[in-house]
Amino acid sequence: MEFINGVKQKEDISVGQLLTGDYTGKSVKMRGTVHNVRDMGEVVFVILRKADGLVQCVYEENAAAGSDAGLSHEDTAGAPSVPAAGSLQLSDIKNLKEESAVEVTGRVTAEARAPYGYELRLSGIEILSEPDEVLPLAINKFKMHTSLEAKLALRPISLRNVRERAKFKIQEGIVRGFRDFLMSQGFTEVHTPKIVSRGAEGGSNVFKLDYFNKKAEMGQSPQFYKQTMVGVYDRVFEVAPVFRAEKHNTTRHLNEYVSLDFEMGYIDSFEEIMAMETGFLQYTMELLAKDYQKELNMLDVKLPDVSRIPAVRFDKAKELVAEKYNRKIRNPFDLEPEEELLIGRYFEEEYESDFVFVTHYPSKKRPFYAMDDPADARFTLSFDLLFRGLEVTTGGQRIHDYKEILKKMEKRGMDPADIESYLMIFKYGMPPHGGLGIGLERLTMRLLGEQNVREASLFPRDVTRLEP
Amino acid sequence: MEFINGVKQKEDISVGQLLTGDYTGKSVKMRGTVHNVRDMGEVVFVILRKADGLVQCVYEENAAAGSDAGLSHEDTAGAPSVPAAGSLQLSDIKNLKEESAVEVTGRVTAEARAPYGYELRLSGIEILSEPDEVLPLAINKFKMHTSLEAKLALRPISLRNVRERAKFKIQEGIVRGFRDFLMSQGFTEVHTPKIVSRGAEGGSNVFKLDYFNKKAEMGQSPQFYKQTMVGVYDRVFEVAPVFRAEKHNTTRHLNEYVSLDFEMGYIDSFEEIMAMETGFLQYTMELLAKDYQKELNMLDVKLPDVSRIPAVRFDKAKELVAEKYNRKIRNPFDLEPEEELLIGRYFEEEYESDFVFVTHYPSKKRPFYAMDDPADARFTLSFDLLFRGLEVTTGGQRIHDYKEILKKMEKRGMDPADIESYLMIFKYGMPPHGGLGIGLERLTMRLLGEQNVREASLFPRDVTRLEP
Repeated sequence: MEFINGVKQKEDISVGQLLTGDYTGKSVKMRGTVHNVRDMGEVVFVILRKADGLVQCVYEENAAAGSDAGLSHEDTAGAPSVPAAGSLQLSDIKNLKEESAVEVTGRVTAEARAPYGYELRLSGIEILSEPDEVLPLAINKFKMHTSLEAKLALRPISLRNVRERAKFKIQEGIVRGFRDFLMSQGFTEVHTPKIVSRGAEGGSNVFKLDYFNKKAEMGQSPQFYKQTMVGVYDRVFEVAPVFRAEKHNTTRHLNEYVSLDFEMGYIDSFEEIMAMETGFLQYTMELLAKDYQKELNMLDVKLPDVSRIPAVRFDKAKELVAEKYNRKIRNPFDLEPEEELLIGRYFEEEYESDFVFVTHYPSKKRPFYAMDDPADARFTLSFDLLFRGLEVTTGGQRIHDYKEILKKMEKRGMDPADIESYLMIFKYGMPPHGGLGIGLERLTMRLLGEQNVREASLFPRDVTRLEP
Repeated sequence: MEFINGVKQKEDISVGQLLTGDYTGKSVKMRGTVHNVRDMGEVVFVILRKADGLVQCVYEENAAAGSDAGLSHEDTAGAPSVPAAGSLQLSDIKNLKEESAVEVTGRVTAEARAPYGYELRLSGIEILSEPDEVLPLAINKFKMHTSLEAKLALRPISLRNVRERAKFKIQEGIVRGFRDFLMSQGFTEVHTPKIVSRGAEGGSNVFKLDYFNKKAEMGQSPQFYKQTMVGVYDRVFEVAPVFRAEKHNTTRHLNEYVSLDFEMGYIDSFEEIMAMETGFLQYTMELLAKDYQKELNMLDVKLPDVSRIPAVRFDKAKELVAEKYNRKIRNPFDLEPEEELLIGRYFEEEYESDFVFVTHYPSKKRPFYAMDDPADARFTLSFDLLFRGLEVTTGGQRIHDYKEILKKMEKRGMDPADIESYLMIFKYGMPPHGGLGIGLERLTMRLLGEQNVREASLFPRDVTRLEP
């Protein structure tokens, strides 16, 4: 009987290993994609693209055979079967197709002009697979200088560009930060259903589907479920897709996005939720600085200062920007996108903060489950977080009392029978609680300084885009 | 201006803090739910339910006042404002409603008969919120002794039972293990869309939806996207919901489940994928033993030995069980559920293994993108992993050559134009690669020894169930 025992170390090394190990003067194997071939006549440079970086490989006719001739077995690190020196031909290298998958063998040599200060003096190349056609897009340029439309149409390929993929590596870091920080704060991760019988927020912007002849919807938010789980684990979080059938085709909207949600019980005030989000941002910026510096540098990203985030009341924020920027308040109950931008600008100018919490949104603009401010029921104990003038989070304290939520539903003409299994949690007891939802792509977009949220989604879904 | 600075330590402590800190003889505050009130006349026990355990609190008339009378300020740990001794009345305790959210104040006392060996001698209780009705289900019993139907109908409440919630805490550990292990192996986490224009596996078991007057489907698998991302990051994983409109109403099927997917490039053989999965299982069992022992004990879970996992060819496995259990081979191209059970039994009996990889599935039963075995094209370089006789994983090597995949599609009568943006990745070059998808709920179910996959889903979706 054959047995599988677990992961075996492979012979080839990563860029990380190359940089941290002691390989200078030794022959190594590396696997990757042929990113670029630069033919200089008798010298050919091959740039190998690996997940964790680019590696410069060089082949000089005659020189390669010479430099490998004296290679003793002791010099070989993790590469017992280096092809015989001289077996590699200049023509092999010159004929390499970009986007071929290869295994190269070469001696590690210090070279100040190469990425990371090392290059591989090639002694062997094995082609693992080859493309069928030449790329329709110069993905091996540092900046692609192409339109967003073109990039998105060729997304499966354009993501191979090192700057494009760096964006989503940083996005990985944000999600890691969210999970790791919340786990450290006693939160439990949950997975709740995305096919639901009714949306949490109601309204018309839901995708409907036929579920075995029953009417169903794609979840706009895990709202009801995460509140439910507060009754179980006190503090919970979820990272999952949400779906909004909004017909806006703007630079800020996606019809499917990743929502970073948390919900926490036993709170004394809704400020605790903002404090938890601030803690998440502090932790995450540190994590990015530690583990994603390469990508941050590549994209010229300067991490924002999140040591403290100002909080301003909704109506006060409106007044401040109306006054400073000489602007009329048209809609006292909601923030227009332009107003959000101005609030962002105000707090950047006055407090050097990229973030600002806007609190106490009007009750009529918040969902029925939002808790009204006991001091003034026209407002809620809720907030948005703006990042450089864009709403990236909505959160707040929720009603936890059964009679109170029934009363608010009645006022809004809602039928409790429609959401009976949600209301069950209040009927049988819920602690005071609240939480928030963060739009991952918006947060990424603002962090990267991108102007369109599609730049921060691997395969964006918008009104016209269902592919790739 | 008000500023939010981050998370502040709260006054109340968790069960973890109680057990690791030096609180004996000191007065502490704890917040939680009234899980149980046992009225013994002049002594009342209150069991407090917190996310990380149950805490026994006790109130004896007169005794409480007496024991707190000598409490100096120095004795008070993290609880500066203990209510004046004697302010608490026996009737306050007796009238406590189960499922109320409370903050208790009490002196920590060693008590061998209490959970974890400690109890709180109560000196104060503050009610934070109260339920409206008495629970319809005795969730505070250790085992609920109720039907699955009843539990699911009252899921928002029944999950509060400590054994029910322990299941999903273990599930959290599995997902943590998956992510942490793969990150350690150089994988990148990705988020791919769930609304797609066409399903990866084709067929009729897809949920359809109207996407702004275009035909769309809910993704059955991130297959195309994770392969695409191999071209970008070499190794990727995703934890996300998948949707299958299968009409089976069995103990093994859900219509929405969480799929643990990974895909890796530059493989030399499909055995590397099985080795990676074995590595994940080894890492995860260790993680569970380390961080989830309390839950494992509560549910009497014995972790399986995954130091080595046998691998057997599909046709060989069929022969082995046919011979040993005297069973006719009816369908040579697929495994019937009963056959899977017998294969599981065979490897348990013969090799003491709870897991077995079944390899080389017939080509006609695998999707078009599966790589056929060069040695015999009737079979594929693919596998399933069975856990105690249940398929929990499907994986294998994929075709990476453009012409080869076109040829296989042609043979199956498929139109390349339908999946052009997927085929793009092969046209422009893909490394040899493969991967797998693990059904989280099935893996959890088998680990816990549950007989129905619904036991391992917080809010299961099946043919008749769309709520809660």
